Amino acid sequence: MVRWEPGAPERLQKAALELFATRGFEQTTATEIAQSVGLTERTFFRHFSDKREVLFYGQQLLVEAFLAGVAGAPPDASPIEIVAAGLESAATFFPDENRTHSRTRQAVIDENPALQERELHKLATIGTTIADALRARGVDELAATLAAQSGMTVFGIAFTRWIREGETRSLAGIAADVLGELVTLTGKATRIGDA
Amino acid sequence: MVRWEPGAPERLQKAALELFATRGFEQTTATEIAQSVGLTERTFFRHFSDKREVLFYGQQLLVEAFLAGVAGAPPDASPIEIVAAGLESAATFFPDENRTHSRTRQAVIDENPALQERELHKLATIGTTIADALRARGVDELAATLAAQSGMTVFGIAFTRWIREGETRSLAGIAADVLGELVTLTGKATRIGDA
Repeated sequence: MVRWEPGAPERLQKAALELFATRGFEQTTATEIAQSVGLTERTFFRHFSDKREVLFYGQQLLVEAFLAGVAGAPPDASPIEIVAAGLESAATFFPDENRTHSRTRQAVIDENPALQERELHKLATIGTTIADALRARGVDELAATLAAQSGMTVFGIAFTRWIREGETRSLAGIAADVLGELVTLTGKATRIGDA
Repeated sequence: MVRWEPGAPERLQKAALELFATRGFEQTTATEIAQSVGLTERTFFRHFSDKREVLFYGQQLLVEAFLAGVAGAPPDASPIEIVAAGLESAATFFPDENRTHSRTRQAVIDENPALQERELHKLATIGTTIADALRARGVDELAATLAAQSGMTVFGIAFTRWIREGETRSLAGIAADVLGELVTLTGKATRIGDA
């Protein structure tokens, strides 16, 4: 009989991040993570396929936050405006009290090329899911892909700024500014397209 | 004494792609790749750290093509216009006679999540290099990052379209159209920024 472990994934995630940050990702084993919070290796592998995945726990919730924003955008919103609504909703997933946690997680990822690749893959997957949601709203394929990927660019840049030491603005505020800058920038490309 | 092997990397790359496409990436070893073109495993590892890297040979030349375009943009070009010049230059790296090769390579990558992650990392690295080049031209940090990453988004979407079965337009032409669409799209975001 499998025993139910209330909050085990969250406890493992917190413990893993602490060990990764202090000892290094490579030097920490799944067994050590589990033991540090009084759990077994077997429990660890019931929740995560490997130690790398601990850092990506919660990805589905972030996707859902994005999609909720997309679904809530006004019917007449343009593709970029729909993405803006998605970004605003996704930002609620990162309240200011999580900034230190997010900063530590990013520092662990920045130290390890394989983790960087996994993070990029995560963001690309979220982008694909948002593009699908835009298409489901009737946005054509190219516009949906461009708007969704631009949204992920804005999200990535805003997130990097949000976790900088000394930054006090909310992620939602920074993301809105970065998206505004993208709109301004492309508005200056007067020799391109029909804009 | 190390014997000079003229064209060995190119021969290994061509052989690897054929084996990956027919047998599968996982099922092909570095030794088999080398032997299929009459070279030794040692020669293989003199050029590539592992079989994955064979698929990413030439990345530096692509970066240089992007940078040459950036360097050649008019002094008064806006950040997005500079990126457009980089894209046009990078596209010369993919003449139409390479389309079948690129399509086969992409099919191998699409089959393997680790290769997809490596490919995303490659594109992100190119984006960072272009952002650095924009900053060196005096573009501020946010605009440089946004313009460079948007350029990589456009490149990625254009490349995916270029290798579609039946597509006959050049990569340069497709990239210009996709960038134009991005400019048009952001121009419709009238409720965002000051554009």
